Amino acid sequence: MPDEIRILGINGIPLLKKGDDIAKAILDAAEKQGTPVVEDDVLVVTQKIVSKVEGRVYRLSEIQPSILAKRLGRKLDKDPAIVELVLRESRAIVRMSGKHLITETRHGFICANSGVDVSNVSGGDAAALLPVDPDRSARDLREQIRRLSGKNVAVIVSDTFGRPFRIGHTDVAIGSAGIAPVLDLRGEQDLFGYVMKVKETAIIDELASAAELAIGNSNEAVPAAVIRGFKYAHSDEGARKLVMQRKNNLFR
Amino acid sequence: MPDEIRILGINGIPLLKKGDDIAKAILDAAEKQGTPVVEDDVLVVTQKIVSKVEGRVYRLSEIQPSILAKRLGRKLDKDPAIVELVLRESRAIVRMSGKHLITETRHGFICANSGVDVSNVSGGDAAALLPVDPDRSARDLREQIRRLSGKNVAVIVSDTFGRPFRIGHTDVAIGSAGIAPVLDLRGEQDLFGYVMKVKETAIIDELASAAELAIGNSNEAVPAAVIRGFKYAHSDEGARKLVMQRKNNLFR
Repeated sequence: MPDEIRILGINGIPLLKKGDDIAKAILDAAEKQGTPVVEDDVLVVTQKIVSKVEGRVYRLSEIQPSILAKRLGRKLDKDPAIVELVLRESRAIVRMSGKHLITETRHGFICANSGVDVSNVSGGDAAALLPVDPDRSARDLREQIRRLSGKNVAVIVSDTFGRPFRIGHTDVAIGSAGIAPVLDLRGEQDLFGYVMKVKETAIIDELASAAELAIGNSNEAVPAAVIRGFKYAHSDEGARKLVMQRKNNLFR
Repeated sequence: MPDEIRILGINGIPLLKKGDDIAKAILDAAEKQGTPVVEDDVLVVTQKIVSKVEGRVYRLSEIQPSILAKRLGRKLDKDPAIVELVLRESRAIVRMSGKHLITETRHGFICANSGVDVSNVSGGDAAALLPVDPDRSARDLREQIRRLSGKNVAVIVSDTFGRPFRIGHTDVAIGSAGIAPVLDLRGEQDLFGYVMKVKETAIIDELASAAELAIGNSNEAVPAAVIRGFKYAHSDEGARKLVMQRKNNLFR
């Protein structure tokens, strides 16, 4: 039998709100479904429940859109309150075309609408913003899991991003803790002794995508998954390591 | 116990060459390691072994670089024979900067060097090009597996691509057969009854990334993996569905 990697969705996590203990909710749900968290698991948690417990949810009816937000809202056919939140969360507008508003977030991520999201929040009147510091969110969650269970796990906070050159979305890591974000094979020899010049695998993004297969889609009942049996290097670096510097970006 | 998705690397596939039966090699290796292929498995095969059995490997010393290839080779500090192959495989040069040559391939993929690759081929003197029609490669492999084993599996041909806005590479699907490439949730209701406007999950790319976790890195001994327990929709569409039309591309 080969080594095998398992992806386990965690069912039965209750709807969480600001201040709730997300670590406890996940540990309890995993235990209850018969798959308690074990040492070296990779726990992938979707951004939205992290944002909720961190109080990053805003009622759209309470947002005062700026003049710019109102103007862009008309242009893009978007709710000006949402545009206002998008602008507050952004460092730069990268592209604007049709109904698309691609921004660079405060963290340096380039994505649609600064990651501001109205689905699965509360019926369209509220929007969830990305965590202020998703690497810190991941570290806190990892630490709290260790405190409650004694287990060391890697934690990834995932979100769903589009890709500039391919149709469709995949989940990527916006925050991580306890795992090296990149597996760097530059300089290693391949099977024929050829030294590979370029190969840096974005491990945490691949793990986020793998977890999404179990997390699925519109059903918030599964906002987290565990990946078990994957060997990874430990690291204090976070997902910010995957943020591309503007000067290295060929497509800005 | 929740449903679980398993990722199984297939060890012990021999080095293959032009004309070899890739389906038989995979079925034998999977059987031998105690994990025979079963109905509805998703089989992910890396591009390179597909290219090899399809004879898409060229000796660099036998390539006559054009004047353009020589000039770009000097500019980019690349072997002009490799640049020649890159140009032959491309429909357009999308970006050229420093040592980077980003092209649109004959298939419409936008990636570095048209996917031309010298690692894990034969010590640096040969280069593997992408399959001419990776969706057809996937269909042929799926059909041959059905013929030999009686099992219906989905097949994905994967390759390693960089991302314009994020550091590091992930594996994506360049060919597929027997599986819907995209899970389209547009128009479905979320947990709160809000109709989701945008959510099209690039399932086959997520599966390719998940498989890469088992396939690993420089070791060609594991050029394929099976993903078991993932529920997918059957489809005759191929991975070409993920190719973005130039007119919809905000970053060309």
